Amino acid sequence: MFTSNPEDTICAVSTPPGVSAIGVIRLSGAESRHIIGKIFQARDKSFTSMNAQSHTLHFGTIASGDELIDDVLVSFFLAPHSYTGEDVVEISCHGSPYIRRRILEELVNHGARMAHTGEFTLRAFLNHKFDLSQAEAIADLIAADSKISHDLAMSQLRGGFSAEIRKLRDQLLEFASLLVLELDFSEEDVEFADRSRLMELLQQILQKVSSLKDSFSLGNVLKQGIPVTITGRPNVGKSTLLNALLNEEKALVSEIPGTTRDAIEDVLNINGVTFRFIDTAGLRRPEDTVETMGVERTWEKISKASVILYVFDISEADTSSILEDINAISEKIRNTGSRLVLIGNKTDLLIELPHHFRELVEMETIFISAKRRENVNLISESLLRSVESDKIGDTSIISNLRHYEALSKALESVTAMIQGMDEKRSTDLLTIDLHAALHHLGTITGEITTDDILGSIFSRFCIGK
Amino acid sequence: MFTSNPEDTICAVSTPPGVSAIGVIRLSGAESRHIIGKIFQARDKSFTSMNAQSHTLHFGTIASGDELIDDVLVSFFLAPHSYTGEDVVEISCHGSPYIRRRILEELVNHGARMAHTGEFTLRAFLNHKFDLSQAEAIADLIAADSKISHDLAMSQLRGGFSAEIRKLRDQLLEFASLLVLELDFSEEDVEFADRSRLMELLQQILQKVSSLKDSFSLGNVLKQGIPVTITGRPNVGKSTLLNALLNEEKALVSEIPGTTRDAIEDVLNINGVTFRFIDTAGLRRPEDTVETMGVERTWEKISKASVILYVFDISEADTSSILEDINAISEKIRNTGSRLVLIGNKTDLLIELPHHFRELVEMETIFISAKRRENVNLISESLLRSVESDKIGDTSIISNLRHYEALSKALESVTAMIQGMDEKRSTDLLTIDLHAALHHLGTITGEITTDDILGSIFSRFCIGK
Repeated sequence: MFTSNPEDTICAVSTPPGVSAIGVIRLSGAESRHIIGKIFQARDKSFTSMNAQSHTLHFGTIASGDELIDDVLVSFFLAPHSYTGEDVVEISCHGSPYIRRRILEELVNHGARMAHTGEFTLRAFLNHKFDLSQAEAIADLIAADSKISHDLAMSQLRGGFSAEIRKLRDQLLEFASLLVLELDFSEEDVEFADRSRLMELLQQILQKVSSLKDSFSLGNVLKQGIPVTITGRPNVGKSTLLNALLNEEKALVSEIPGTTRDAIEDVLNINGVTFRFIDTAGLRRPEDTVETMGVERTWEKISKASVILYVFDISEADTSSILEDINAISEKIRNTGSRLVLIGNKTDLLIELPHHFRELVEMETIFISAKRRENVNLISESLLRSVESDKIGDTSIISNLRHYEALSKALESVTAMIQGMDEKRSTDLLTIDLHAALHHLGTITGEITTDDILGSIFSRFCIGK
Repeated sequence: MFTSNPEDTICAVSTPPGVSAIGVIRLSGAESRHIIGKIFQARDKSFTSMNAQSHTLHFGTIASGDELIDDVLVSFFLAPHSYTGEDVVEISCHGSPYIRRRILEELVNHGARMAHTGEFTLRAFLNHKFDLSQAEAIADLIAADSKISHDLAMSQLRGGFSAEIRKLRDQLLEFASLLVLELDFSEEDVEFADRSRLMELLQQILQKVSSLKDSFSLGNVLKQGIPVTITGRPNVGKSTLLNALLNEEKALVSEIPGTTRDAIEDVLNINGVTFRFIDTAGLRRPEDTVETMGVERTWEKISKASVILYVFDISEADTSSILEDINAISEKIRNTGSRLVLIGNKTDLLIELPHHFRELVEMETIFISAKRRENVNLISESLLRSVESDKIGDTSIISNLRHYEALSKALESVTAMIQGMDEKRSTDLLTIDLHAALHHLGTITGEITTDDILGSIFSRFCIGK
């Protein structure tokens, strides 16, 4: 149940649990000022909460009868000039779990109820402070742990994406009115003059919906972190390389071939972009069952990675197995948009690069010594280029699965409309697809919502937001 | 180094780490308004931070050049009307670790420095917003996890204790001036008229210092939780009783005598008072080394407990061992202020109380069935009475070890002064003890401080407080 009875005044702790200098308790609803007035005494005796001005702060005490609970600062935000659009009161108290609990108890005793997760933001949405995709951006903003995921969320919060969706809906509505015009004339059997105009409009819509949908593959990896797999034959220095990249000893490094059997995941932040490094068991032909599982997992990881770092040992005399691997990986990632980078390791063992490697390698290859941490920075730079070449311009990048699904369905409907136009289907049939497209786009910004949609969005919020 | 250069503007996150709706970052010092002005743009374009009014709130954005960091609320508190007594700015941002870090970086880039733990409160103390014992009360208030420890801290924060210490110092200064008078006349060999007045004053001071010092034993157990030991012969139901009291299965319950070898500690909150329950290995004559250690530990626990619950089995025919235990415990706790409560367990096994127990027990005895959880509430009530009978009246109860130590030293000095008066020592000698007493009392409220004292107090604070 994610409708929020606007009659209720809700309260919650908005800061994390734990002992700290400050804790913040938030109250929203018509009774906020009345309820705080029952327990708060400002140091300025002439102050009453019912006469509080918006955006003012008041020092005083919260008490229950004779029992002094805390010295607090109370902020007032009057409707509609608040986060939720309702009267909001924020209590800044000492960051003691006991004090937070006692204040909440008093608020509830005087008529407030505990807020559900995300209920403050839900009310802000219901009061048209922002649309649904912006509300989702707030949750993403709070969860963002890298510059790029933060910037994606901030851009979505600023409403550029919402404006694009609204423009698409406007274009669909324009199409609808042109269609109605045609309907009016069609009975007179007059071929509608501007049928090409209609088709052109649909093609524009199709292209925009399609490009937004496609941006998800980038948006999702940027938000979640770009998956990078380090692979190669056993003992070529994969774990040593991962360690050099992470600059700390997290993966098991050993001289025994096949030691690293479990995929280890580690996260590296390069210039605000998160890369998820996946170390693998390597590509050696397995000699026992456990190793078979390791090799299978390696191929699974390769198929999921955006960048594959294939490591080989330049002191290796036989290049056939290396060529075999490169071909197999290239085959595996064909048409996936993934990128293969070859890493020639162990430059410390040789004075110069063996001739057979110069000939072998026609692809981008970085020669390093993982052991001595030489040229490892070139790998970081190469990884970063793989993001920048995908350049994040002014167009929106979607990173939300719900938006991706809605855009996919909208795309189907628009595609069906274009097909219908081609096949000169009846206006009635076209209208069904039109309504479907409008519906799916409307769910993104929340013009169309259901309890299910609201529930799944706001239940993922923090308490107190 | 716990002097705080007042030229520095300091900043810190004041809310706990973690992802949440709101995070609060605090800035204090002369440059606060200047620094926030560099990164904060209010939605009201006419607003400038240098013209901000005290106790006002402003919505806007924090940015670094083109990079939008967050939508925030900024509060201004102008000197001296702030927590620290300096200009204070509080930034209420989204509770994202990334955003908190970025804002801190920007504040530091524009001239603030990261605050030490407790440095805001240290500045408040140095700016005479409160004295040292009140500053300590703030740390206690934040750490308080029960009503009684909260109330102790709140009472100390309100300054009653500080006032008592100041009064003691005033009385010592009064004594000093009377002593100087005597000194003036002494050369004329005139016996000073009011020597008895001097002695009376010292006795008053002695009594007050002594009673404050003695309140520590109560204050400390109230703050830390009152230690309660459950003891008795093996298999009389000690663990079952503890479980019944805790209303959950935390201690190991078994039919095998001597199973509970390790002391288990559990905490129970009864009407806002914390009791720390210590289950023991029991008092059986040990049959192996491990049990010997268990029994030794039991005696150690008994000597540290404020309340000893001695459990015996009323279905036991032989009462001699029980009498033996009761006598041994009574002997152990003589003059310690600890309390022994006898618990006759297993009323479920008998229809009525055997005659020999009626005769045996002259002390307070509670008959229960731990197994059926019958009359267990009578134990809770009895425990609570043991606190209330110690009644916490209007006099201060000290719960801080530093205060206890300072009072102990002051008591020694005052005792030495009385002895000196008795022995008609020279005024010069009396003055040495007088200065010592003034010094020790002064360290409590902070009239006298050293870097060491400030360091040990403020380093225990939260960051951002």
